[in-house]
Amino acid sequence: TPKTKIALLPGDGIGPEVTEQAIKVMDAVAERFDQHFEYCHADVGAIAIDRHGSPLPEETLEACLNADAVFFGAIGHPKYDNDPSAKVRPEQGLLQLRKSLGLYANIRPVTTYEKLLHLSPLREDRIKGTDMVIFRELTGGIYFGEKNTAEDGQSAYDTCSYQVDEIDRITRLAFEQAMLRRRKVTLVDKANVLETSRLWRRAVQAIAPEYPEVELDFMFVDNAAMQLIQYPSQFDVILTSNMFGDILSDEASVLAGSMGLLPSASVGVHTSMFEPIHGSFPQAAGQDIANPMAAILSAAMLVESLGMTEAAKSIRTTVQYVLEKGIGTPELKPNIVYGCSKIGDLIAHLV
Amino acid sequence: TPKTKIALLPGDGIGPEVTEQAIKVMDAVAERFDQHFEYCHADVGAIAIDRHGSPLPEETLEACLNADAVFFGAIGHPKYDNDPSAKVRPEQGLLQLRKSLGLYANIRPVTTYEKLLHLSPLREDRIKGTDMVIFRELTGGIYFGEKNTAEDGQSAYDTCSYQVDEIDRITRLAFEQAMLRRRKVTLVDKANVLETSRLWRRAVQAIAPEYPEVELDFMFVDNAAMQLIQYPSQFDVILTSNMFGDILSDEASVLAGSMGLLPSASVGVHTSMFEPIHGSFPQAAGQDIANPMAAILSAAMLVESLGMTEAAKSIRTTVQYVLEKGIGTPELKPNIVYGCSKIGDLIAHLV
Ligand SMILES: CC(C)[C@H](C(=O)O)[C@@H](O)C(=O)O
Ligand SMILES: CC(C)[C@H](C(=O)O)[C@@H](O)C(=O)O
Repeated sequence: TPKTKIALLPGDGIGPEVTEQAIKVMDAVAERFDQHFEYCHADVGAIAIDRHGSPLPEETLEACLNADAVFFGAIGHPKYDNDPSAKVRPEQGLLQLRKSLGLYANIRPVTTYEKLLHLSPLREDRIKGTDMVIFRELTGGIYFGEKNTAEDGQSAYDTCSYQVDEIDRITRLAFEQAMLRRRKVTLVDKANVLETSRLWRRAVQAIAPEYPEVELDFMFVDNAAMQLIQYPSQFDVILTSNMFGDILSDEASVLAGSMGLLPSASVGVHTSMFEPIHGSFPQAAGQDIANPMAAILSAAMLVESLGMTEAAKSIRTTVQYVLEKGIGTPELKPNIVYGCSKIGDLIAHLV
Repeated sequence: TPKTKIALLPGDGIGPEVTEQAIKVMDAVAERFDQHFEYCHADVGAIAIDRHGSPLPEETLEACLNADAVFFGAIGHPKYDNDPSAKVRPEQGLLQLRKSLGLYANIRPVTTYEKLLHLSPLREDRIKGTDMVIFRELTGGIYFGEKNTAEDGQSAYDTCSYQVDEIDRITRLAFEQAMLRRRKVTLVDKANVLETSRLWRRAVQAIAPEYPEVELDFMFVDNAAMQLIQYPSQFDVILTSNMFGDILSDEASVLAGSMGLLPSASVGVHTSMFEPIHGSFPQAAGQDIANPMAAILSAAMLVESLGMTEAAKSIRTTVQYVLEKGIGTPELKPNIVYGCSKIGDLIAHLV
């Protein structure tokens, strides 16, 4: 069998240790399903600034472009945090990576586990049954539009711009996903104010007839920010632009009460990237207490993207089984506390 | 005593009935505190489109400009809703009104009532103690920047722009308010991505030393969307731009579990406007079930802006007292259910 190349970008803080567990699990399913993964390690984030003077060194980008898929841990370090005026910032590496790999669709499932409902900040009756996927456009909008500060420092602007083809490709992905789920897409925008939102509405409405079985809803972003808290279970697939997606996907991520369980995929033109949604959590680094499940579930999305549907299913079922057994890392306050590495071993053995 | 002129814009749906209750209460405090209010009614929203062909007729704008304060009910009607392509839309009237009156700061307190904590979608231990005020910039940013759709319909853009003086005036208001409260201001932005956010940071940092007793924090908007749900009681004064404020203030408004209780003020260059944050709720119109407390608490903010501090306090204490007695409109599921008008009468008698 031909080898599948996976670029590994562990990054900072707990990134490396959760990545290690994801590798254990990917190796386990590779063996079980008779596949071969070849890994290529590369630096990104603060560690890349320290070692190479850039958050996204040339070699890292090349490793990604040569890979069939990219696994990303987490980036960010206190010494670069909250300092928007710093010359080189880890975020720049991330934005550059997205742009260079053409990662146009960030996909974030938000799932709840019966056993963990009590961790949610929402009352159980509100959060119960929540199972949604957010499709956030990732290489356009106000993130990448023209921006500038006037020379006298008295004014500044950012431009949000979109083209129909940028909207079309993520829209198709979202509808395809909806077909495999509850067949409902909610486009979130601010069409009562923004031209770009009206462009999104028209573009999405033009594609919708290709998926006659999917129900298409529209919701203003301010309303969506409310509905996510009031009735989160109403959502199936949420489709939205870069900036709104940044806000809403983070908002949605805390509903489940455990950031340590949420994976993500960023589908790209050149390759796709998979990463846990949690940050680098430097305070926890090296203590073997980080929850590797988000990384492991990201690995499930990765192998699924390579066509290994059964392997993906097996990883998800195993995570569910382990949680149901009352096993977990400390932050889940489980009956049986395991460390990061032990959870990785356990899941790798069970898949 | 000279008469204080108040422009009344009841608007659509339940707007007129809750406005009526606010008037009862304003009249009651006027009498008690020896003031005189003169009201001038004007049309706005869907009803203004129907009657005058414009959501903001010339006479309405003039009535506002001639007034010492403006009371606004609610606007919006299903026949104009969710139709971003409609030629005239009620929202346009609202945006025009904000711009024409120079309503640069939208102020939204989010308060919780011990007796109503069970209505919150959040668990009681999370929501308890929540007491914040959001300062949203209202006449700048991406709402009013240059925007356009290309002739071929294949692309569009919106511009977010800010000037330092636009930031300064609302920043001063926010710090003044913080001085009367817990002395903490949290600036919410996306300074790791946006030039305008970096402008906000610099401008706010330049003003902060004028208020040495106030602690100034920075928070990225995606994080703020999470923190609002996870630890809402950490916030005192939130300061943010127009678009982020639109999203976050709506998100925050559902935390308390009762939109029917939340007032707002929009401070302007020419005059200031006061309105309940809830919508026109057409389904409930004319049934005497709407909660007038948000309108009544908006009236409290109105009289406070006229210097009637004691009257404002008396209105707030009375609302609190009525709620504590277990009295309320149906949506609060209170022990004693009163209609909209009866609540208005009761509060007017008690203030
Ligand atoms: C770090 C930052 C630039 C980034 C973003 O806003 O996209 C992050 O918040 C995310 O969502 O991945
Ligand atoms: C109706 C709409 C234009 C408006 C806004 O976005 O400002 C509304 O959502 C609000 O917050 O008052």
